[in-house]
Amino acid sequence: MTTEVTSIGPTPPREAEIPRIVRAHGGGGELMGRLIRDHLLPVIGNDCLSALGDGAVLPVLDGVPVMTTDGFVVQPLTFPGGDIGRLAVCGTVNDLAMMGARPVALSLAMILEEGLPMATLDWIVASISAAADEAGVRIVTGDTKVVESSGRTPGMTITTAGIGVRAPSVNLGPGQIRPGDRVLINGTLAEHGLAIMAAREGLEFETELTSDAAPLNGLVAEIMRFGDAIRFLRDPTRGGLANVLADVAEETGLGVEIEESALPIRRSARHAAELLGLDPLTVANEGKCVIVVAEDAAEEALAVCRQHRYGRDAAVIGRVTDSCPAVVELLTTVGGRRIVQRPYGEELPRIC
Amino acid sequence: MTTEVTSIGPTPPREAEIPRIVRAHGGGGELMGRLIRDHLLPVIGNDCLSALGDGAVLPVLDGVPVMTTDGFVVQPLTFPGGDIGRLAVCGTVNDLAMMGARPVALSLAMILEEGLPMATLDWIVASISAAADEAGVRIVTGDTKVVESSGRTPGMTITTAGIGVRAPSVNLGPGQIRPGDRVLINGTLAEHGLAIMAAREGLEFETELTSDAAPLNGLVAEIMRFGDAIRFLRDPTRGGLANVLADVAEETGLGVEIEESALPIRRSARHAAELLGLDPLTVANEGKCVIVVAEDAAEEALAVCRQHRYGRDAAVIGRVTDSCPAVVELLTTVGGRRIVQRPYGEELPRIC
Repeated sequence: MTTEVTSIGPTPPREAEIPRIVRAHGGGGELMGRLIRDHLLPVIGNDCLSALGDGAVLPVLDGVPVMTTDGFVVQPLTFPGGDIGRLAVCGTVNDLAMMGARPVALSLAMILEEGLPMATLDWIVASISAAADEAGVRIVTGDTKVVESSGRTPGMTITTAGIGVRAPSVNLGPGQIRPGDRVLINGTLAEHGLAIMAAREGLEFETELTSDAAPLNGLVAEIMRFGDAIRFLRDPTRGGLANVLADVAEETGLGVEIEESALPIRRSARHAAELLGLDPLTVANEGKCVIVVAEDAAEEALAVCRQHRYGRDAAVIGRVTDSCPAVVELLTTVGGRRIVQRPYGEELPRIC
Repeated sequence: MTTEVTSIGPTPPREAEIPRIVRAHGGGGELMGRLIRDHLLPVIGNDCLSALGDGAVLPVLDGVPVMTTDGFVVQPLTFPGGDIGRLAVCGTVNDLAMMGARPVALSLAMILEEGLPMATLDWIVASISAAADEAGVRIVTGDTKVVESSGRTPGMTITTAGIGVRAPSVNLGPGQIRPGDRVLINGTLAEHGLAIMAAREGLEFETELTSDAAPLNGLVAEIMRFGDAIRFLRDPTRGGLANVLADVAEETGLGVEIEESALPIRRSARHAAELLGLDPLTVANEGKCVIVVAEDAAEEALAVCRQHRYGRDAAVIGRVTDSCPAVVELLTTVGGRRIVQRPYGEELPRIC
């Protein structure tokens, strides 16, 4: 396993007179026009967005339209491996990918807090642009509001919505899952949530923990070539792997057996989780995908994953079974069994 | 002109032990599942939303897709004539309508503050449902996050995105505007912004001021029957009428002349604006539409507007001209002329 080190945002500005977001930037007037013209369009502009109408006209969609949305409230705004902008783009792109859809267009609504340094906003907008380019989607329409600051450090929230298109033949969902199917994950677990917590608590580890935030539409496009052998895709964000597998058990009425020894968890993540008292199975990921695949296609699908940039550490971690009630069981390294429960609430606030 | 009185939300709860939003409602776990199952789906559920996947599969769109988004941060959350939920649905429906599109589907992302009374959320969700029914759109996908409260009164923000579909023949925009075209407005001005400000300041007026928040897709569908005679549609929200007309002048290079005597402004609104020191032309509306229409279709278009529930007070307020530079001029009741400027920034924070 490799660790990718990514720079973590601008140096926090110290001067009192640096340019900052003020109320009037959200007022729909001249100053908001300048914010859009000078800070947003030069970075994320394109034919659609730059028309600046009440909305965007898209090309006619060739297939079944899919729509999704997500709000992002992560703190801090920048962290090792990413920032709220990359997270917002990846989160929405991934939700579309999990539906078997090719992302086509994103909307971007930002609620900025008064006092947010313009340099921070510029950084985040650049990151949005880079992530959208990587995923091959365009930001086609947007909205900006400004509100008073809620804390000592002015923050922001981002809500993205996405439109994708999928082939009419795609048939994904819990209803497709059969006993004997294998459960794959495309890489190592828990790094996003742990990186955020470590950044927030000021913890440092020998090996840097970085968020795994990544757009998975490319990987999913490869995987979808297996057709109906791919039963179900879901990204284990809030609530982590435990939550997704609990969904699978609940929605299928089948059991899920996971092998502890097969779970790809980096030593640094395991160490951080212990230190923070967290179960890596319930920690959020932002570049991971649970793939339920027919038994006879599992090895090939694994090989395809491993060929991909975001699938190098992919592993088959378990299987679906009808031999036990509809629960998720972990077969531990010492030969025991424990039931994996869905987390009750939020272990990690403002993690995405 | 008539005044519609609408109830203004639940009585603020006083007991210490009323049900409230807690962190865990946003954690992706069991408690969030209950929030969705018990408070959201029974009210706004439908085939798409209730599938609870990572997104929603929509019917194939018959025409050109149009996408829009808006964030809503209004305070207080409920006010005379509406609430943040009605506002969010109407705002996005109207943005689609202004593009000449028929709204098809909305996404709904809510960021809730810890401590928000569940009764307030229930009220707002019911209002979202009612507004969506009125507009004939479905909420197809959503997201919920919970953050710490930023003020004394826990609030929430809503971001909606919308997908609509429009006929390939539709050709709206500033590029279609010609000298001699008439400027219509579908009703009285400034009531949304003034109602919010009055509610916030605890002001009371003899005649109640209520927000005009309303879905305009029905009215626009009627108006669009005039085809190419309809040149341009835009809803004068933040920045008000002044901002929209400044856009028209700037984007066409033509002048706009508005007659003060023709502006439909209720006495109560005029009075409130004076008291608050605001210009009704720069105050936000949420159920209004500026229609630029060919001279020879203006009277008929006006008549069609006036037949509609949300167009009863419609008026021709001015015209496009090439006889002066690209500015907006107000012909005052006493025969003078003044230039109407785009507001510089935000006169009214958190107005939508």
